[in-house]
Amino acid sequence: MVRWEPNAPERLSRAALELFTERGYDNTTVAEIAERTGLTKRTFFRHFADKREVLFGGQDALVKVLAEAITAAPDPVEPLAAIGAALEATAVFFGPERLKWAQERQAVIDANPELQERELLKLATLTTAFRDALRERGVPEPGASLAAEIGNLAFRTAFTRWIDPANQLDFAELTRRTLDELRQAAATLA
Amino acid sequence: MVRWEPNAPERLSRAALELFTERGYDNTTVAEIAERTGLTKRTFFRHFADKREVLFGGQDALVKVLAEAITAAPDPVEPLAAIGAALEATAVFFGPERLKWAQERQAVIDANPELQERELLKLATLTTAFRDALRERGVPEPGASLAAEIGNLAFRTAFTRWIDPANQLDFAELTRRTLDELRQAAATLA
Repeated sequence: MVRWEPNAPERLSRAALELFTERGYDNTTVAEIAERTGLTKRTFFRHFADKREVLFGGQDALVKVLAEAITAAPDPVEPLAAIGAALEATAVFFGPERLKWAQERQAVIDANPELQERELLKLATLTTAFRDALRERGVPEPGASLAAEIGNLAFRTAFTRWIDPANQLDFAELTRRTLDELRQAAATLA
Repeated sequence: MVRWEPNAPERLSRAALELFTERGYDNTTVAEIAERTGLTKRTFFRHFADKREVLFGGQDALVKVLAEAITAAPDPVEPLAAIGAALEATAVFFGPERLKWAQERQAVIDANPELQERELLKLATLTTAFRDALRERGVPEPGASLAAEIGNLAFRTAFTRWIDPANQLDFAELTRRTLDELRQAAATLA
């Protein structure tokens, strides 16, 4: 019998981030993460494939929101407008209550090459989600792939601005400004 | 004393690819790769940090050629023209004598998530090289980052076309066509 543990993934992620911040990623074991939450190693591995994954929970939900927003974009699809709507829709994941977590999490990732590698893999799934959803809506190549890369760059840039301690703007506004700047840059480059 | 082994990295990479193709990446050990080349495990680790790295030799040379071409681009820098010159300069790594190796290597990477993750990390270094060299030449943000992403996408697309068994064009020509298509797509998107 598998015992149901309320919010186990969230509890494990929070404990992991605390331990990584205190001792460093390399000096923290999965057993220690589980122990701090009062859960077992087995429960950890039911939710996360490996130690790296514990900082990337919620990724599937993010990708789903992005893809659904592209699917719901009005006809005929204007790719960067659809990307913009999708990025704004993700603001639900980046409210003020998540800011401290996001800042601490990013500091841990930036200090560890293994985590940076996993982050790249996760970010690549955003590009794939954008690209596939745009193709599905009939956007031809290489426009779908290029728009997807612009969407990914806009997401990363908006996120970096959002976690900057000096930032005053909310995530949705940051995505709008970033994407506008990238659209202008694309016009200049082309 | 460290014994000098002529072409040790190349020999190790070729042996590794043979073994990965025959037995699969997961079923091949570093000891077996070294054994097949008549070298030691210690020699392997003098050249490659881990088993994944053995398929990514030559990456530093590629990044160097890209960055140097951007640095050498005529003033005032037109970012996509500079990227185009840089991509053409990499054609020296993608001659017909390398095609079979590249095809077999990509098949192994595509079959293994660990290798795909490492490939993303390597591809990300191309983007960083483009971006930093463009910034160095005075290209403002976010134009430098966007041009770098376009350069990365052009590189990946040209490479995928080059290893397609039906392809008849050389790598330099493929980079020109791919970048032209992306420039048009950027104009349409913007």
